[in-house]
Amino acid sequence: MAEKTTIKVLIDGKIMTLSGYETEEYLQRVSFYLNSKIEELKRLAGYSRLSQETKSSLLALNIADDYFKAKSMAESLERDIEDKDRDAYANKQQLISMQVEKEKLQKELDRLRGRLQHGH
Amino acid sequence: MAEKTTIKVLIDGKIMTLSGYETEEYLQRVSFYLNSKIEELKRLAGYSRLSQETKSSLLALNIADDYFKAKSMAESLERDIEDKDRDAYANKQQLISMQVEKEKLQKELDRLRGRLQHGH
Repeated sequence: MAEKTTIKVLIDGKIMTLSGYETEEYLQRVSFYLNSKIEELKRLAGYSRLSQETKSSLLALNIADDYFKAKSMAESLERDIEDKDRDAYANKQQLISMQVEKEKLQKELDRLRGRLQHGH
Repeated sequence: MAEKTTIKVLIDGKIMTLSGYETEEYLQRVSFYLNSKIEELKRLAGYSRLSQETKSSLLALNIADDYFKAKSMAESLERDIEDKDRDAYANKQQLISMQVEKEKLQKELDRLRGRLQHGH
């Protein structure tokens, strides 16, 4: 089992202790992302006048939006993969039947060559 | 351009007005997801004793974690697609070269048949 990582990070200027079975690098990446989301919101007009509660909900909504977009991207890629798998299967079938046809032609060719050699 | 949707949703028991160029159904899905994340956190031991600030950060971190996992899933699917595209290309090349070989065999067969018919 992976070891538990505990690190202190700055989120919105406040020290937070994160702990989890993720790598330190991952926890740092998540914190960096959160801070960049907060910075994005701070640039919105009127943001500073919002209540802390509304700010928190806005942040959660924004991240949830990123999550839903990434999830829908993954779902669309999964559908692409299904299509590609179907195509690959069809191509493989075509390869097999071509191989069979080739062998048939080759056999017939060998037979005719035999006949020609022995003056039929 | 899409019309702007404005709806009122309940997030953590509080009414929030959401507005965006997303469909109402999407905004409802995001709200439902947020509420389920909040419910998840509420079930953690000691959660109720945390400050509002820590609760908000925990929520943001949890959603960010979902986002990073969905993103990494999408990235891994993208790599799968690249592999599949490479395989599909190789298969297509193989199909083409098999087609060429088949035609060569067919031509040779026709030639031999002609010789046999005309008593070479």
